Amino acid sequence: MLTDSTIERWLAEDVGHHDVNNQVSGETTGKLVAKESGVAAGLDAAAAVFDYLDIDCDTTAETGCRISAGDCVLSVEGHTRDVLRGERVAVNLAGHASGIATKTRKAVDTVREVSENVQVAGTRKTTPGLRSIEKRAIVAGGGDTHRLDLSHMMMVKDNHVAEMGIEEAIRQFRKRGSFTTKIEVEVEDPVRAPRAAQAGADIILLDNMPPEETSRAVDTIQADYPDVLVEASGGITIEDLPAYAATGVDVISMGSLTHSAEMLDYSFRTGDGRS
Amino acid sequence: MLTDSTIERWLAEDVGHHDVNNQVSGETTGKLVAKESGVAAGLDAAAAVFDYLDIDCDTTAETGCRISAGDCVLSVEGHTRDVLRGERVAVNLAGHASGIATKTRKAVDTVREVSENVQVAGTRKTTPGLRSIEKRAIVAGGGDTHRLDLSHMMMVKDNHVAEMGIEEAIRQFRKRGSFTTKIEVEVEDPVRAPRAAQAGADIILLDNMPPEETSRAVDTIQADYPDVLVEASGGITIEDLPAYAATGVDVISMGSLTHSAEMLDYSFRTGDGRS
Amino acid sequence: MLTDSTIERWLAEDVGHHDVNNQVSGETTGKLVAKESGVAAGLDAAAAVFDYLDIDCDTTAETGCRISAGDCVLSVEGHTRDVLRGERVAVNLAGHASGIATKTRKAVDTVREVSENVQVAGTRKTTPGLRSIEKRAIVAGGGDTHRLDLSHMMMVKDNHVAEMGIEEAIRQFRKRGSFTTKIEVEVEDPVRAPRAAQAGADIILLDNMPPEETSRAVDTIQADYPDVLVEASGGITIEDLPAYAATGVDVISMGSLTHSAEMLDYSFRTGDGRS
Amino acid sequence: MLTDSTIERWLAEDVGHHDVNNQVSGETTGKLVAKESGVAAGLDAAAAVFDYLDIDCDTTAETGCRISAGDCVLSVEGHTRDVLRGERVAVNLAGHASGIATKTRKAVDTVREVSENVQVAGTRKTTPGLRSIEKRAIVAGGGDTHRLDLSHMMMVKDNHVAEMGIEEAIRQFRKRGSFTTKIEVEVEDPVRAPRAAQAGADIILLDNMPPEETSRAVDTIQADYPDVLVEASGGITIEDLPAYAATGVDVISMGSLTHSAEMLDYSFRTGDGRS
Amino acid sequence: MLTDSTIERWLAEDVGHHDVNNQVSGETTGKLVAKESGVAAGLDAAAAVFDYLDIDCDTTAETGCRISAGDCVLSVEGHTRDVLRGERVAVNLAGHASGIATKTRKAVDTVREVSENVQVAGTRKTTPGLRSIEKRAIVAGGGDTHRLDLSHMMMVKDNHVAEMGIEEAIRQFRKRGSFTTKIEVEVEDPVRAPRAAQAGADIILLDNMPPEETSRAVDTIQADYPDVLVEASGGITIEDLPAYAATGVDVISMGSLTHSAEMLDYSFRTGDGRS
Amino acid sequence: MLTDSTIERWLAEDVGHHDVNNQVSGETTGKLVAKESGVAAGLDAAAAVFDYLDIDCDTTAETGCRISAGDCVLSVEGHTRDVLRGERVAVNLAGHASGIATKTRKAVDTVREVSENVQVAGTRKTTPGLRSIEKRAIVAGGGDTHRLDLSHMMMVKDNHVAEMGIEEAIRQFRKRGSFTTKIEVEVEDPVRAPRAAQAGADIILLDNMPPEETSRAVDTIQADYPDVLVEASGGITIEDLPAYAATGVDVISMGSLTHSAEMLDYSFRTGDGRS
Repeated sequence: MLTDSTIERWLAEDVGHHDVNNQVSGETTGKLVAKESGVAAGLDAAAAVFDYLDIDCDTTAETGCRISAGDCVLSVEGHTRDVLRGERVAVNLAGHASGIATKTRKAVDTVREVSENVQVAGTRKTTPGLRSIEKRAIVAGGGDTHRLDLSHMMMVKDNHVAEMGIEEAIRQFRKRGSFTTKIEVEVEDPVRAPRAAQAGADIILLDNMPPEETSRAVDTIQADYPDVLVEASGGITIEDLPAYAATGVDVISMGSLTHSAEMLDYSFRTGDGRS
Repeated sequence: MLTDSTIERWLAEDVGHHDVNNQVSGETTGKLVAKESGVAAGLDAAAAVFDYLDIDCDTTAETGCRISAGDCVLSVEGHTRDVLRGERVAVNLAGHASGIATKTRKAVDTVREVSENVQVAGTRKTTPGLRSIEKRAIVAGGGDTHRLDLSHMMMVKDNHVAEMGIEEAIRQFRKRGSFTTKIEVEVEDPVRAPRAAQAGADIILLDNMPPEETSRAVDTIQADYPDVLVEASGGITIEDLPAYAATGVDVISMGSLTHSAEMLDYSFRTGDGRS
Repeated sequence: MLTDSTIERWLAEDVGHHDVNNQVSGETTGKLVAKESGVAAGLDAAAAVFDYLDIDCDTTAETGCRISAGDCVLSVEGHTRDVLRGERVAVNLAGHASGIATKTRKAVDTVREVSENVQVAGTRKTTPGLRSIEKRAIVAGGGDTHRLDLSHMMMVKDNHVAEMGIEEAIRQFRKRGSFTTKIEVEVEDPVRAPRAAQAGADIILLDNMPPEETSRAVDTIQADYPDVLVEASGGITIEDLPAYAATGVDVISMGSLTHSAEMLDYSFRTGDGRS
Repeated sequence: MLTDSTIERWLAEDVGHHDVNNQVSGETTGKLVAKESGVAAGLDAAAAVFDYLDIDCDTTAETGCRISAGDCVLSVEGHTRDVLRGERVAVNLAGHASGIATKTRKAVDTVREVSENVQVAGTRKTTPGLRSIEKRAIVAGGGDTHRLDLSHMMMVKDNHVAEMGIEEAIRQFRKRGSFTTKIEVEVEDPVRAPRAAQAGADIILLDNMPPEETSRAVDTIQADYPDVLVEASGGITIEDLPAYAATGVDVISMGSLTHSAEMLDYSFRTGDGRS
Repeated sequence: MLTDSTIERWLAEDVGHHDVNNQVSGETTGKLVAKESGVAAGLDAAAAVFDYLDIDCDTTAETGCRISAGDCVLSVEGHTRDVLRGERVAVNLAGHASGIATKTRKAVDTVREVSENVQVAGTRKTTPGLRSIEKRAIVAGGGDTHRLDLSHMMMVKDNHVAEMGIEEAIRQFRKRGSFTTKIEVEVEDPVRAPRAAQAGADIILLDNMPPEETSRAVDTIQADYPDVLVEASGGITIEDLPAYAATGVDVISMGSLTHSAEMLDYSFRTGDGRS
Repeated sequence: MLTDSTIERWLAEDVGHHDVNNQVSGETTGKLVAKESGVAAGLDAAAAVFDYLDIDCDTTAETGCRISAGDCVLSVEGHTRDVLRGERVAVNLAGHASGIATKTRKAVDTVREVSENVQVAGTRKTTPGLRSIEKRAIVAGGGDTHRLDLSHMMMVKDNHVAEMGIEEAIRQFRKRGSFTTKIEVEVEDPVRAPRAAQAGADIILLDNMPPEETSRAVDTIQADYPDVLVEASGGITIEDLPAYAATGVDVISMGSLTHSAEMLDYSFRTGDGRS
């Protein structure tokens, strides 16, 4: 949820104590226009900023749609002063989220050339304060959120395994956690994958394995545990995607979808030419 | 200022209602280690996260220093559970800020090959909620914050000029604003630049002009108004920097420093191998 | 996470603008003592209140332990004024959480007389603002949190099924949601249970069914889909538990664990007899 | 006051980062319907939740009225998605507050069989974060809020008396506190009651005394100090009320009104059958 | 209660996004020194600001004491940067509160020349956000807080009386309010005063009456209702105090104590001469 | 920006947990009426309070206008209960801000008798939490905000000069700070003024100098550095203004504009005579 408190913090951050730039009376209209092609996201957040300022606001593109340079994705009408006050925060949000959606779309499309089913997912490497918006931007781009926070899914890490053995580690997590929560087990050595599946892992994370090794691990798991999902992760770039997509994994997760996406370029144009 | 309230919002965002992954007793140490070379930034913010969780924390690299893969920039000691709880937010902050510092450093270095004095500055295109951290990251990379918020400096935009004429627009802003605040005037047509300087602009922004046109405008301004600063802006990339740096402008500003920087890759390693 | 902001809101709520009752100098000790037997919970939250006020605080009972009248569960030492200021909020938290843990323990013990494996779980019927504390209190009493919030697990409700048919409804949810998230399907008619399992439900919720009908539905599901969990829910009281536990369901969930538990009675005694 | 910030915290607590259950378009109506008889309370709070989400909302029962199973107490109309998002928090609030009002009503009715004038009051044993709502629920049930926070009324406790003697303790409190604030004096030994009245107590609290002893103390006080109010307190249950009501005390206070009331059962039904 | 959240808002308000004035390393000491004589108040608030910044801080004057030019009221030791960052907010708080205490002391002393018993009280005309600090400053100056907020005491206003008659108005308020809460009745016509007392008012407010009329009303009330307190209010200045103090009223309240007090002048001096 | 969160904190501060004074049904109108002449300010803030409570509200005087006793500056219409709830906070804000505007206007008018150009400015000696409102009130009175926070302008203090010499201190600040930010240099010895100007100060602050000395310093600076602004500061009262205005300084700053202004007296009158 994007709360009013969050929006007012963001606006206050940009406006400061006494803004004399925007001491304008009257009403204006405004449009958020894409300056390059990509995938629209963050429009709800941008609209919420204008809404907080009591500006009428319509989103004119669907979240998740491909857009081209020149497309208007959001239009507003209200007091000129308020429109100018909300503009920068709204553009920054839409540009940031659409950049993530666009990068995700590109990753998904790359994967689709090789496989119909492999999913592309994010990670917890998100910008502090923007987790929800960034996760939705991934979904807008055709990706999967992956776990939303530490409470959303249990993840048995290598060091847990080292400490207690894989079976005991899974047993402990299962006991601590809820029946509503999945368990994913990280394995760095493919030999452990079937043991994890046997011990009750819902998902197996193959961490930092090259594609061939990933491929062999997937085969082993799917032979005996067809219901267990397999995820590949670890510094995978868009260039690496075709090779990983061909391994048969169910999910490929990439931190770079959120932490290293370039902003999608939008401009905001008021009816009277102001920006 | 990075407030405790902000840190607790970021931690709550990542932890959720009931984290069973990190139910570990005992104490541990931990290190934040660079996985690639770049410029360190955001370490104060990362340290503040650990500090909020009552974890002892030392930064072992100076903000603004160049670091190499393998360098430890921050070390901690505390309850294992709390260390694991703070880790992700701390890494995300440090990685994000260091990515901005690294990109800024690269821009500054590129400019320095051509000019000793031209400054590289950010814009207001920052991530909502992270304005302060991102502005400091720019400084860490050798850049200039540019205005911090709308109240920090007055900016006479093209539409103000269209409405009232350049002299009247500047007169109006000067009257509204404080003697403590500079006035920058945006000009899209170089002909207006000397008029803006004459009318009392402290800084003239040459927006979206190609390098040659920028160069001519700079010459005109500096001939008669040597104390007026000149800034170039508008989609300038790192590739464009040498050409702009050669024009003699005082400042080149780039939104991409904050909105499109790639994260600098760090890993967090606990004393017992946990991550 | 119990944040400092939350604690200060709770303290301010109880103290008001100008408390003249506790204008006392000097230091004191204090003990939180059970006045009846039950299960300890909420002690971390109570300790966090004293910690916020810079009072030394030790929990002297383990969360989840059975305690008897007279047992001291937490002891403090600090400025008398601060101890008296934190006392009421701390007692209210510990009493509320321990009441939930005690009721949960009773439910779990009742179930254990019939079955080793059936779990007792809470619901989303929690007190606004106390979700995390109440969910942990359930765990302290031997229960299962059930889903922590709407984002934690997908729940296909009867009306979704009515609208699209069970297979399509599950397909839609699976598409919208993440691979990290389980899907539970609510069925009011036992005939639909195997269809839901076939369509990919991770958990089937048998809502408002009497024990015999529940039992038959469980048998049908487990015969063909042994990995699918079955949950019974709908106004089940502690008196009803043996009958439901005997049906073979995996989980019995009860809103009354959180919304209708009686407080466990604690008193707070200062070293000098003050309370 | 129930602030918007509080409501958004409660909603965020229940919704989480990314709710895919309620991705529904269109409009719907909804009704909050009692499933058992009791006293309505918390409807303003429930309405405020829907109002925050821009849903039209009418309360169709008066706060403090007796309601029966099947009665609709609140009806809404708005975007289906928002209605479903607000529903759980609204029901939890109304159920919690109405449970307190219902228990209070029962206590007041029990007392009324014996006495026309004795009041039933709450205590400071409320749920952290819900003080205002719970105090209003007591009023809705015909009870008295008692003091709202530590600043609202001065309470001279036994240990103050032990330290300074009753007269000096009252003198000290009177000096510290405002003329606008009443002083209540807690006495465990009835002998002290007239001395407290003589020294200027506005209210005398007879703590943990059996009914007969209470009765004698009341007689002594009222003989000489008819304007001084007398309150009985200390683990008094609904079963104990007739005996205490017959003692002639002015007020009987019960912590259990707030800390151990069972929720009143409501269901929320949308126009299209969704819940 | 002065919460950490409040302090961090105040500090952020003064510091802004990027303060380059105080980029100093090393440790320093500092002293808050009075530049004129007055009454010390707000020192706890000033100390809390430094405490939030992890600076060691001792108050070296008692709240409520008279101080002279040159007196040190608070001393600190910590990181130079943090000391400089907290200084302005701390001085502003101490100066504001001490100004109120000093003005209150002057009013009380003026009254004491005429009467031993008349109290001087504040009103609800306080600075938004500073209610608690200002009320304590009044107490530090020897005054009475008066009611802390609307919930603290009931006030029957003239228009209530006009609407329902004085007896019914008081009866209604008594019914709505708690037994713990006093009722004050505002009368503009002295004839109504005995009727208000008869109807159960705890306090009678004589609003906007000249001293002679006040005096007559006091006599009438005290003759028959010696336990009822009488308050005079309405634009009373320090010059008016002797006349009002001689009327025999119990309390004189003055909004100007908080809304029009001049700051007491303090300077903050660091060990190295910095300020 | 005056945020909703701020307004709700202010309202909650004045209302408390359970206000029974204003339990009134129906609608009313209301007017904010000046009881003395002065300059209107804070009306936007007062209107925002009513707006938060969903009360229709029109400001009927311009911010910065002179008003007379009897003038209505703001009128409202809404639920009686809400109007009564917002009234006190709204009046306190308008009275406080208008008091500052009125004092500023008086200072500016005093200066205008001597000089057309000298500006009157505030300082950072503002009430914590009200910086923005107080700065705008100064502007409403014809004054200059001076720097809004520590990040808004750099100020080289005497101790910096003592430490590094004036040229080096300015050089250091220039290096640390942004090209968008002015530098002011505080000099206590007039000899240093031309050196500061020469070294690049944008503004020179003559601190605690008597008028004649100020006059000489101004002459020296303006002779050689006509573009450098000169500010006089240090306990300057309204009585001192003519002498300082005659010195030729550009700006005179006075902390007393904000820290020691008397409230402008307003009354709030409801349509039915309620207040």
